[in-house]
Amino acid sequence: MEAHIVGWGHTPFGRLDETLEELICNAGREAMEHAQVDPKDVDGIWIGHANAGLVPDSFISSMPLQISSDLRFVPATRLENACASGSAAVFGARNAIESGRTKVALVIGVEKMTDKDTKGVTEALMTASYQAEEGTFSFPHLFGRLADSYFQANGNKSDILARIAAKNHSNSVKNPLAQMQKDVGFEFCNIVSDRNPMVAPPLRLTDCSLISDGAAALVMVADDASHNFKRSVRFRSSVQVNDFLPMSKRDILKFEGPAEAFKKAFEEANISVNDLDFAEVHDCFTMAELMIYEAMGLTKVGQGSRAVLDGTVFSEGSTPINLSGGLKAKGHPVGATGVSMHALAAAQVVGEAGLMQKTSANLGCIFNMGGTGVANYCSILEASR
Amino acid sequence: MEAHIVGWGHTPFGRLDETLEELICNAGREAMEHAQVDPKDVDGIWIGHANAGLVPDSFISSMPLQISSDLRFVPATRLENACASGSAAVFGARNAIESGRTKVALVIGVEKMTDKDTKGVTEALMTASYQAEEGTFSFPHLFGRLADSYFQANGNKSDILARIAAKNHSNSVKNPLAQMQKDVGFEFCNIVSDRNPMVAPPLRLTDCSLISDGAAALVMVADDASHNFKRSVRFRSSVQVNDFLPMSKRDILKFEGPAEAFKKAFEEANISVNDLDFAEVHDCFTMAELMIYEAMGLTKVGQGSRAVLDGTVFSEGSTPINLSGGLKAKGHPVGATGVSMHALAAAQVVGEAGLMQKTSANLGCIFNMGGTGVANYCSILEASR
Repeated sequence: MEAHIVGWGHTPFGRLDETLEELICNAGREAMEHAQVDPKDVDGIWIGHANAGLVPDSFISSMPLQISSDLRFVPATRLENACASGSAAVFGARNAIESGRTKVALVIGVEKMTDKDTKGVTEALMTASYQAEEGTFSFPHLFGRLADSYFQANGNKSDILARIAAKNHSNSVKNPLAQMQKDVGFEFCNIVSDRNPMVAPPLRLTDCSLISDGAAALVMVADDASHNFKRSVRFRSSVQVNDFLPMSKRDILKFEGPAEAFKKAFEEANISVNDLDFAEVHDCFTMAELMIYEAMGLTKVGQGSRAVLDGTVFSEGSTPINLSGGLKAKGHPVGATGVSMHALAAAQVVGEAGLMQKTSANLGCIFNMGGTGVANYCSILEASR
Repeated sequence: MEAHIVGWGHTPFGRLDETLEELICNAGREAMEHAQVDPKDVDGIWIGHANAGLVPDSFISSMPLQISSDLRFVPATRLENACASGSAAVFGARNAIESGRTKVALVIGVEKMTDKDTKGVTEALMTASYQAEEGTFSFPHLFGRLADSYFQANGNKSDILARIAAKNHSNSVKNPLAQMQKDVGFEFCNIVSDRNPMVAPPLRLTDCSLISDGAAALVMVADDASHNFKRSVRFRSSVQVNDFLPMSKRDILKFEGPAEAFKKAFEEANISVNDLDFAEVHDCFTMAELMIYEAMGLTKVGQGSRAVLDGTVFSEGSTPINLSGGLKAKGHPVGATGVSMHALAAAQVVGEAGLMQKTSANLGCIFNMGGTGVANYCSILEASR
């Protein structure tokens, strides 16, 4: 049995009035309507939510049952893999469908972050690193250290990071659900200013993704049922790789977990990186996106800048990265991100991406990451028919 | 493909010196040794952990990789369904095995609770109810309300609850890993005293399960691999049912979610409750165990007391309940509980339960619950050969 994506829902990302429960229900309801699936046909629910203290609700698996009383008694499970919790939910549903136990799965990723102030969010997210060694460092700090090491090895790439930020901001203008939808330009991103302060040297504010509320949802079905649906997207491959949690046990400049995930996903799909028409990747920091270029094989390790300088990753390039605006400008409600990536990539491969639509977007790649390359999820999507 | 349990590990439950990471690694290592599985053969890891603020580590999926560097790059995922998080991990592994993606799964359930004081633990667990309506009530309070409603409908059953507590304490004497291992007697449980105060009327201290640290682990394999192992236990059935989160949307005295889970599990296994040789059930409060007798069909609704009065649920009765001592006396490290139940029931059906061993324990039942009957997991286990 093979899993297919047949519908999706996606709230706006940003500072929203909706509660966690409302975000869950809005995205889930929209996905079922988009797939034209009746709640009574759903037989499994997977929900990605990092939480980590962002909201007081620690047990939310049954919240999607608030959408419809027809969802009563459906098994519902929360999955967590830090900022890759959304993909954890997608992969949990995939397994259940492939096992034959589930015919119609509802997958929801969600995060409500803005109930906390920036300090509160930073402290909550800090719990996602190895507490015994890294517990006192914020994620901007950890990625700042990573950037510092990278710059020492490969030269200062602050201007490249600014180009990545500017690219994603530029792309976000075409995404009506993005948090920013504003083309701020390279100069703004490249120059430290009152409005773009240094956050964790060498990373500036524009090198960091956003604090966001939001939810995204998918309806996934078993292949024997997928022909009843208006659209259908299959996983050409889907791979999860976990690396050691402590950064001290890894050569972080090699980004080995992400590289292993891409390698296996390409092998399983029987493709090379050049076969991809686009990718949505985990730019929690511009530094992460730069290293992901290398992990996916667009360039050799240490040479990711080339993919920026030669235009490869821009919207008109050969492998556009983050046409949605990415975590940088679309927003990064952490538990929602992986589901959002799958939803937007699915929309691309079936030509439903609206203003973001790329011509001949046949093969799309998703890379969603928890921690500093700790939990790594890579999917390759294509239209089923 | 069918999932089989071929080995297990189980730390003592109690107030332990070990850290969360040590508990995870100790249980996981022991399970692999028990199954005689080499870490390099493990190709998937599922970890059940409720957390909810009990420890600062919010992203622990990769912690089992600390057992052995051979576990590097193995996909690892945390699952949460409140106090049923352990069973969520078991069922996640089951799906992956049945899908054909995973051949050898390591499943770990864990909780480190005693880093917080009782007030801190109570507050952490309070986040597992529907915050919008029940957020100000502790779980002893919620089950106290439930007991109060039950007593109003069916008469005061405080003495029955005391007999359930005394039974589980008595059973725990034979479980060397139990937190209490002490036969405190019916009188002690039935009389309110300085040492047994009223906690949440009508529930006394002895009506409540314990605050515990601990971990349990399983090795689960695909059926085509199970014949290489010294022992093998199969799921005759395994069912998950989620009910509405808000108590206001349910007639709590009917315990419909639990009842639905038992009904489906018995149907799937093609058995009746009378075919069970024993059961490990979720006695987070003695009141829950009493209502579980009814949900599983040992008696009609409102008549659970009969199963106590006629001896059915005692160790020498026809359906012994909680031979391990239950959450009441074995302890209840919440994320570990579901895995512990599966491990101890598996040990029973293959005759490895030591002093707890029941003669002809061929068919064992597990019922693990999150919230007040919200997430409900029921498994029926038997030896594979």
